[in-house]
Amino acid sequence: MPITTPLTELLGIRHPILSAPMDTIAGCRLTRAVSEAGGFGILGGGYGDRARLQAEAAELKGFAPFGIGFITWSLAKQPDLLDIALDASPQVVMLSFGDPAPFAPQIKASGARLMCQVQSEDMAKQALDAGAEILIAQGTEAGGHGASRTTVDIVPAIVDLVAGRVPVVAAGGIADGRGLAAMMMLGASGVLVGTRFYASVEANAAADAKERIRTADANDTVRGVVPDWSRKLFWPAPFTARTLVNGFIKSWTGREIELMQRADDVAKEYAAAKMAGDFEIAAVFAGEAVGLIHDIPPAAEIVVRIATEAEQLLAGRRNSIASLA
Amino acid sequence: MPITTPLTELLGIRHPILSAPMDTIAGCRLTRAVSEAGGFGILGGGYGDRARLQAEAAELKGFAPFGIGFITWSLAKQPDLLDIALDASPQVVMLSFGDPAPFAPQIKASGARLMCQVQSEDMAKQALDAGAEILIAQGTEAGGHGASRTTVDIVPAIVDLVAGRVPVVAAGGIADGRGLAAMMMLGASGVLVGTRFYASVEANAAADAKERIRTADANDTVRGVVPDWSRKLFWPAPFTARTLVNGFIKSWTGREIELMQRADDVAKEYAAAKMAGDFEIAAVFAGEAVGLIHDIPPAAEIVVRIATEAEQLLAGRRNSIASLA
Repeated sequence: MPITTPLTELLGIRHPILSAPMDTIAGCRLTRAVSEAGGFGILGGGYGDRARLQAEAAELKGFAPFGIGFITWSLAKQPDLLDIALDASPQVVMLSFGDPAPFAPQIKASGARLMCQVQSEDMAKQALDAGAEILIAQGTEAGGHGASRTTVDIVPAIVDLVAGRVPVVAAGGIADGRGLAAMMMLGASGVLVGTRFYASVEANAAADAKERIRTADANDTVRGVVPDWSRKLFWPAPFTARTLVNGFIKSWTGREIELMQRADDVAKEYAAAKMAGDFEIAAVFAGEAVGLIHDIPPAAEIVVRIATEAEQLLAGRRNSIASLA
Repeated sequence: MPITTPLTELLGIRHPILSAPMDTIAGCRLTRAVSEAGGFGILGGGYGDRARLQAEAAELKGFAPFGIGFITWSLAKQPDLLDIALDASPQVVMLSFGDPAPFAPQIKASGARLMCQVQSEDMAKQALDAGAEILIAQGTEAGGHGASRTTVDIVPAIVDLVAGRVPVVAAGGIADGRGLAAMMMLGASGVLVGTRFYASVEANAAADAKERIRTADANDTVRGVVPDWSRKLFWPAPFTARTLVNGFIKSWTGREIELMQRADDVAKEYAAAKMAGDFEIAAVFAGEAVGLIHDIPPAAEIVVRIATEAEQLLAGRRNSIASLA
């Protein structure tokens, strides 16, 4: 039987599984596939490529349910991108990494739910004050941008702070039904899953990048500033990016000051490598859950697998709790 | 109804809750209290204080069940301390931080179970090769010594590697029944709990140290080398220590090379502060779970609380999964 939680009820979804708005990786195809399988797909708003957002959002107009996610500090530079997003009538707008308050009224006036991803208690308070209707508590295990608190630490901390006012979704390190079931035990109402969906058929990513995720183990990721500074993207503290380790990241880690000094040249090298699909230089943004990922199936299969495994675990039918008295 | 797992069956205990062998904090009093409440207490073997170990172990002789835990690389310097430990007839000897192989035959010949704490897949393989009968997968959230992988990452990784051959116990960030229930969903057979028992009546610690744990939040801990280097304890990589942040740690973090250069003087200052109970200099070893700890109850109450909450969660009677269909 499907797991029902305050999140599934609020969003009207069958499974409490959200796909993360991974920059350009989470395009309309992945978003649609996740939602059609009973989860909740979230389109990546990216760093402000207007043409791309218009095209992707237009594809989703009339579809339901889905969300669109923005990097809040980036959106603040081009606030009218929110108009493009809301024009597609998403059920949710997800804001991460910055103060959501300036955007909250317009989002809520549109009828969309405001979902905010947070990495600390202070950010959670800020989001609640802005009227967030769903919080995502993100641990450092997550791929891409995040902070330092771990999932096992931050999830119950935010659950306790929220005290039932809004559903809390857990993010960071979740790639299977064990993770969903564990997060529910910590008080979460669902999970936001990134890397697992990166390695899916519908993710808008190079085959080699997906293959690197499939074959990586949990020791193969690192959190730092090299992938951002190499693109001359200087994120505000405390946010850094977790990626697969590659030769480029190894060579620059510990030499970040020099990297900043040579940013113009390095950015050219990095951009050329990204264009060429050279992932020994360009970063594959991925989380610690790579250790749990061994295939590249359709996104729908991922949703059903996670949901089914969690349902079985929660019902006590799986080995690990088979002997539960 | 109590939770039964391969761990509770192997050790013949009522609750799958082990207390960590925290250096001098986990003395015979805490060990006994945890076991008498239905958990499994583990005496801290410490850094080789022979007289202390003899006295503590003698107190436990004839008592059952209990374990004794050693820092493996420290034990290797005084291997005959193992004789003292085994003379007390513990049901378990726990080895952490180093190759257990040199000690495994003697431990197993005594009839005690060999339990090894690991922080990576390679360490897990080494422990299994040495004949470990229980593995503890420890995440970076843990207080005291540990490494960098997080609990949500390392627990399923070790569970998958072990593939049912021995029970896996989860450690790092666990202080309540939510944590126990979550770890069981990840495939663990129980939990090793440190910091929560530090803030108990029976822990052999200064009242001010316990009070600092009670009032700290999860942002108040840090992992690093300052507390070790200040005692001229140079641990092998990859191990560092998580403690509460205090003025001393703040002042030395980022200046570790200077600390090593001035180690003799600093060690005198540190030792004097420790003797005087000045915890703005001396470190309180504690994990990220401090954020979940708000009182200093008897250890038995902690065992029963964790067990009862987990039982309710796993049975679906608690709010967070109350709406499970």
